[in-house]
Amino acid sequence: MQVDLFDSLEGYYDEMVSIRRHLHQHPELSFQEYNTAAFIAEYYRNLGIDVRTNVGGNGVVAKVVGRKPGPTVALRADFDALPIQDEKEVEYKSKVPGVMHACGHDGHTAALLVLGKVLHEMKDELEGSIVLIHQHAEEFGPGGAISMIEDGCLEGVDVIFGTHLWASEPTGTIQYRVGPIMAAADRFDITIQGSGGHGAQPHKTKDAVVTASQLVVNLQQIVSRKVDPTKSAVLSVASFIAQNAFNVIADSAQLGGTVRTFDEEVRSQVETEMERVIKGTCITSDSSYTYTFTRGYPAVVNHKQETQFLTEIANSIPGVKVVEEAEPQMGGEDFAYYLQHVKGTFFFTGAKPQGVENPYPHHHPKFDFDEKALLISSKTLGSAALGFLKNNKTTVETAQ
Amino acid sequence: MQVDLFDSLEGYYDEMVSIRRHLHQHPELSFQEYNTAAFIAEYYRNLGIDVRTNVGGNGVVAKVVGRKPGPTVALRADFDALPIQDEKEVEYKSKVPGVMHACGHDGHTAALLVLGKVLHEMKDELEGSIVLIHQHAEEFGPGGAISMIEDGCLEGVDVIFGTHLWASEPTGTIQYRVGPIMAAADRFDITIQGSGGHGAQPHKTKDAVVTASQLVVNLQQIVSRKVDPTKSAVLSVASFIAQNAFNVIADSAQLGGTVRTFDEEVRSQVETEMERVIKGTCITSDSSYTYTFTRGYPAVVNHKQETQFLTEIANSIPGVKVVEEAEPQMGGEDFAYYLQHVKGTFFFTGAKPQGVENPYPHHHPKFDFDEKALLISSKTLGSAALGFLKNNKTTVETAQ
Amino acid sequence: MQVDLFDSLEGYYDEMVSIRRHLHQHPELSFQEYNTAAFIAEYYRNLGIDVRTNVGGNGVVAKVVGRKPGPTVALRADFDALPIQDEKEVEYKSKVPGVMHACGHDGHTAALLVLGKVLHEMKDELEGSIVLIHQHAEEFGPGGAISMIEDGCLEGVDVIFGTHLWASEPTGTIQYRVGPIMAAADRFDITIQGSGGHGAQPHKTKDAVVTASQLVVNLQQIVSRKVDPTKSAVLSVASFIAQNAFNVIADSAQLGGTVRTFDEEVRSQVETEMERVIKGTCITSDSSYTYTFTRGYPAVVNHKQETQFLTEIANSIPGVKVVEEAEPQMGGEDFAYYLQHVKGTFFFTGAKPQGVENPYPHHHPKFDFDEKALLISSKTLGSAALGFLKNNKTTVETAQ
Amino acid sequence: MQVDLFDSLEGYYDEMVSIRRHLHQHPELSFQEYNTAAFIAEYYRNLGIDVRTNVGGNGVVAKVVGRKPGPTVALRADFDALPIQDEKEVEYKSKVPGVMHACGHDGHTAALLVLGKVLHEMKDELEGSIVLIHQHAEEFGPGGAISMIEDGCLEGVDVIFGTHLWASEPTGTIQYRVGPIMAAADRFDITIQGSGGHGAQPHKTKDAVVTASQLVVNLQQIVSRKVDPTKSAVLSVASFIAQNAFNVIADSAQLGGTVRTFDEEVRSQVETEMERVIKGTCITSDSSYTYTFTRGYPAVVNHKQETQFLTEIANSIPGVKVVEEAEPQMGGEDFAYYLQHVKGTFFFTGAKPQGVENPYPHHHPKFDFDEKALLISSKTLGSAALGFLKNNKTTVETAQ
Repeated sequence: MQVDLFDSLEGYYDEMVSIRRHLHQHPELSFQEYNTAAFIAEYYRNLGIDVRTNVGGNGVVAKVVGRKPGPTVALRADFDALPIQDEKEVEYKSKVPGVMHACGHDGHTAALLVLGKVLHEMKDELEGSIVLIHQHAEEFGPGGAISMIEDGCLEGVDVIFGTHLWASEPTGTIQYRVGPIMAAADRFDITIQGSGGHGAQPHKTKDAVVTASQLVVNLQQIVSRKVDPTKSAVLSVASFIAQNAFNVIADSAQLGGTVRTFDEEVRSQVETEMERVIKGTCITSDSSYTYTFTRGYPAVVNHKQETQFLTEIANSIPGVKVVEEAEPQMGGEDFAYYLQHVKGTFFFTGAKPQGVENPYPHHHPKFDFDEKALLISSKTLGSAALGFLKNNKTTVETAQ
Repeated sequence: MQVDLFDSLEGYYDEMVSIRRHLHQHPELSFQEYNTAAFIAEYYRNLGIDVRTNVGGNGVVAKVVGRKPGPTVALRADFDALPIQDEKEVEYKSKVPGVMHACGHDGHTAALLVLGKVLHEMKDELEGSIVLIHQHAEEFGPGGAISMIEDGCLEGVDVIFGTHLWASEPTGTIQYRVGPIMAAADRFDITIQGSGGHGAQPHKTKDAVVTASQLVVNLQQIVSRKVDPTKSAVLSVASFIAQNAFNVIADSAQLGGTVRTFDEEVRSQVETEMERVIKGTCITSDSSYTYTFTRGYPAVVNHKQETQFLTEIANSIPGVKVVEEAEPQMGGEDFAYYLQHVKGTFFFTGAKPQGVENPYPHHHPKFDFDEKALLISSKTLGSAALGFLKNNKTTVETAQ
Repeated sequence: MQVDLFDSLEGYYDEMVSIRRHLHQHPELSFQEYNTAAFIAEYYRNLGIDVRTNVGGNGVVAKVVGRKPGPTVALRADFDALPIQDEKEVEYKSKVPGVMHACGHDGHTAALLVLGKVLHEMKDELEGSIVLIHQHAEEFGPGGAISMIEDGCLEGVDVIFGTHLWASEPTGTIQYRVGPIMAAADRFDITIQGSGGHGAQPHKTKDAVVTASQLVVNLQQIVSRKVDPTKSAVLSVASFIAQNAFNVIADSAQLGGTVRTFDEEVRSQVETEMERVIKGTCITSDSSYTYTFTRGYPAVVNHKQETQFLTEIANSIPGVKVVEEAEPQMGGEDFAYYLQHVKGTFFFTGAKPQGVENPYPHHHPKFDFDEKALLISSKTLGSAALGFLKNNKTTVETAQ
Repeated sequence: MQVDLFDSLEGYYDEMVSIRRHLHQHPELSFQEYNTAAFIAEYYRNLGIDVRTNVGGNGVVAKVVGRKPGPTVALRADFDALPIQDEKEVEYKSKVPGVMHACGHDGHTAALLVLGKVLHEMKDELEGSIVLIHQHAEEFGPGGAISMIEDGCLEGVDVIFGTHLWASEPTGTIQYRVGPIMAAADRFDITIQGSGGHGAQPHKTKDAVVTASQLVVNLQQIVSRKVDPTKSAVLSVASFIAQNAFNVIADSAQLGGTVRTFDEEVRSQVETEMERVIKGTCITSDSSYTYTFTRGYPAVVNHKQETQFLTEIANSIPGVKVVEEAEPQMGGEDFAYYLQHVKGTFFFTGAKPQGVENPYPHHHPKFDFDEKALLISSKTLGSAALGFLKNNKTTVETAQ
């Protein structure tokens, strides 16, 4: 059955690429993916596959029900894009100014759509069901996963698998990890309120640019001095905004950024230490502040048994040359929420562009990936689904 | 004659206030003061006073020629406004959103216009001429003075007087100073070019927010450690701009600000030291930079004899209760350029709002001044002009 | 045989404690442990055990040779003390001012001496040999291990085991780890050369205190921004010395400290980044510097098979309640060198003082440990030795 | 009479040099100047001049009483040395290791001694008295002036003059200033109390080196942002001491330094702002602190009339080529206290070594001055004394 799956997917490879390139040219921002959602739903409807739309927002859930009863496997792909201007020179370049599929979600979607078509074609042979979760809004908190779960997308699901195309690793590799594979991704916003004035009279002001600069410098000590060095934490101040005429001392400054951790204790420690550093720094210049720490996606924590199962499956797929342990990644993923409800695992599918030594990283204006990896990811997800159904035939069945 | 001057000015006080309030409601930004220039020119033309427009831009120069020959005295008032939203609750509040006379130039203009009218009425008694320089664009470099001088506004001028209404000092006071009274006002712009990336992967980036923050902190040492403590310098970073999504490490950051000095050597030293600090800070994080230091107005350096003359005149004016030495001011003024061409002096006219302990500073959204000071400033400038003509009768005259 | 071992060790427990307390009262600094070495050698000689002294310095190596041939197991204990003033109030407090066994090496030595005695008593039953490595100078680079190895202490050795009493973990626990368990421990020394002068004239100086302070702050960014957050690094500036009269600006400042890493690439990266930060910071103030980075002990990297063997042994020991994976420790240990030559493993033996929630850390003036842990450590090391001999009988033997 | 004074001083020039070189070879630290005091007293006693010793400590006060009554003029010279190792290669190099006349007090003393001798020779012509104040302990707070005044050295004194040899200005110049000529010189001591530990475990410590470094950096903002830029302030951290083994994180750090100001308000402001910055910085790292701000000498504020009198005198002295206004100096001087009790002035006597472009500054191990300046200083002080007596004959006298 796995062989049929591979043959079919290979036969539809051109369609997969074609869908990916269509999506790539028409990216939509998180929570605004109306056309993409409609495209997905129409694709399944045209094939006669049962589909539910507006699941927890723009989410789309399709279901392939096998001829015989059995367990239910969910496969998930996300489909939102990023507020980045596409700077690649390719024919399938984004047609939307300032919006771009710079993370590979177009590929995730194309691979899952075609895999859904193939599984649908095989449905008479299936003992159990496969739920195809097309998730909106992965890039922007609170994310689509949480609302799709609330809207029932995991009902009846026994296990879930998901993957991310990974442009830094060669096509033909799969990276797995038991336990935390992606970090908790939190957001913070800080306003430093000083007291502005004329650039020539600093002594009559509380210079918010100096205070906020001092703060950025001081915050470095949390990771360098306060967090257990054998544990991981990242604290990045992404934005610093204090816009004034050249001769005006800033009244206030806005800082924003992200914290990444794998350990809940460290996560809380960083939140607390930040407030201490902000408070002390403001006292230094007699300024005041506001500080919010917004918890984003928790760490993606893979289940042990399902991860081991996935690595065995991956090793059996032609074209997969290397199955290796992943370094934990500091990036966040709302796949984390699915794994809080059902067992499963999230893995990376190597997708480094051919002949490129140092590919552009994800979220870069020139990001791209090797489309051959679409085949690898669809084969791996598909094999995981078929393998799970096979290994977990329902007792009714086995009782026969 | 001085007595006539005072009587006339007092008689026209209501007009002075009325003009000031009209201008206050219709402020125009530097280099865009078309209507204000037209208003000034029309005022003089209606009185039959000779007027030249478009002098070096939007500048307006009127001339009152006395019956007999004699020296020529220039009096100067500036008339541009600031990009500040008027937040006062008064009936003469600015009608232009985001533009405001927050520095008193409306008052300078009203006082000089009415003074011009009075001097014109007295012209049969005058031995010599008075040039009324209405200067545009004082607030924004390169300023209007330099182009008005190039366009001949100082031709034939023997001496120049100018004043600034000064809301921090009580009405009835005059502040003078021999030598530097206002600072050189320079501007700098710095771009820190790091290398951006995902907020979760700092080790793959050169974080421009951290580098620029470090730079702001390091720049403090120039004033605290490098400038001779018996000399004055101010270095203010006004703007810090690095706007990014919360999970993106900044690729670059823009800093802008101002440097104020009284001494040309210190001015050059600060310019040079800044480059050293920027360079070293960028090496620290392996980043690069651009740095421009744009010289603005030089220091306003008052001439000794003319300043002493002015203090004597000021002491003779009813309503002036205190004539005192000013602290040097770190603010810049393009009156500096006139004093590089002809002798003269620039002084402050106290204009603190009645009954207010701590008035809003100049350039504040709620700035205002005591209109009674209009009388003081017009009387002082007028007396200086008349006094100078009287003291410097031409030899032809005295030969008679 | 293991049972005999345990019974004997328990019988000699009082002697173990007595030896430990004797050593505790007579601590000697690294490379000066003449009396301690003599004590150890005499102990073995009195028992008729073969002993070699002055091995690579003050090292002492004893050997228990079994009745029958077989493999050779090395057990190692270190015996130097620290330049710390003992501030405990106990009867066995250090009698040497400023020198103290503040890390537990007295316990390591006592446990190994008595274990050696017991193994010697059991020698007729042994098939193989046990080398008892008493190492001097663990606390101070280059350490004693490297020279003892050069002097042949590992000749003929098949495997090595070592342990550290660990006061933060309860007695009855053993902590193991496959791969890096203790960090590479390097040292750096930095001199900032500015230009001194009178405290009232900063503009004539290059203030070394400000530059060095800036440097300490800037160095934080290496860990917070430059090192891969999923890897570990510590950079601690331990010393900052700039001693001057209160009115003298510092001519120079000396910094010293340590870097800890588990990964050789990160180790080299930190060394290189430090030079960049030092260079940039010095350019900022036009100062110069010297910088030396002295590599200390490499990371202790435990071998997989031997570590798994040790955990199985540990689980079999009465009194050992918990055998758990250790967090990697940022401290350095020259046990690292032995593991570069022969297979083996290094583990922690819990030794938290009874009834103490937060014991004083190692290297603290009030450090102490639970002497009951001496039994645990000697039993575990002894069982590991006996177990290894049993599992690895020589082919000659098995051929019989 | 002035001519006689000049002739006599020139005749004794060799003696003046000889005394200076003797003192230079036998320097004594502040409050320990026993031999120097004895030398001074003996010099006067040998001449039959009335002398009082142990005035407020090691102070020596001699008095030349004129034949006729009249006013009393005090002249002051200080005689302590500094804890600096003499590094000059001259025959009169200091013979006391680590102690040196590196500020010119040896010259002050030699010039006043010989001047005293000459005035004593002229005493029959004098109408009034001259008090010769040889002050100990100028270099080290609380200084000798305050206790000498308490011990009566200014009793009956009408005016006081003092000078400092000034190696940065050419011999033949005199620098005066009305108002503040030397700064208030205060001292601060700060202890940062963190929590020490092992260099590999920063998360278990509060790193005092990092906190104190941050503090040094933050303190720069007081001068750069908080003090009115038209006023002067210096804040120098002279010492930073945290001495630890390379692998130990500092438990505490000691900072010490000086603050210089001319204005009492700024002085208090800096003291207060420092506490705010220390407090905020310590909160940042959850550390604690002690902070003492010890007021040293106040600013030396010269009286207007006496300063003008001195400049006129100075202009009349052969060999004085330039009499010019001094820049205010940030250094402190306890001459300040005399001027709080009697009128007077303190001035600088140029003493730049011949043929040297950039002489070593005061307090430098290679400091030296041009001995020809001894003549200038003694002539100026002597002329001031004679001139004052002449100008201020007592009414009894004039009534005759």
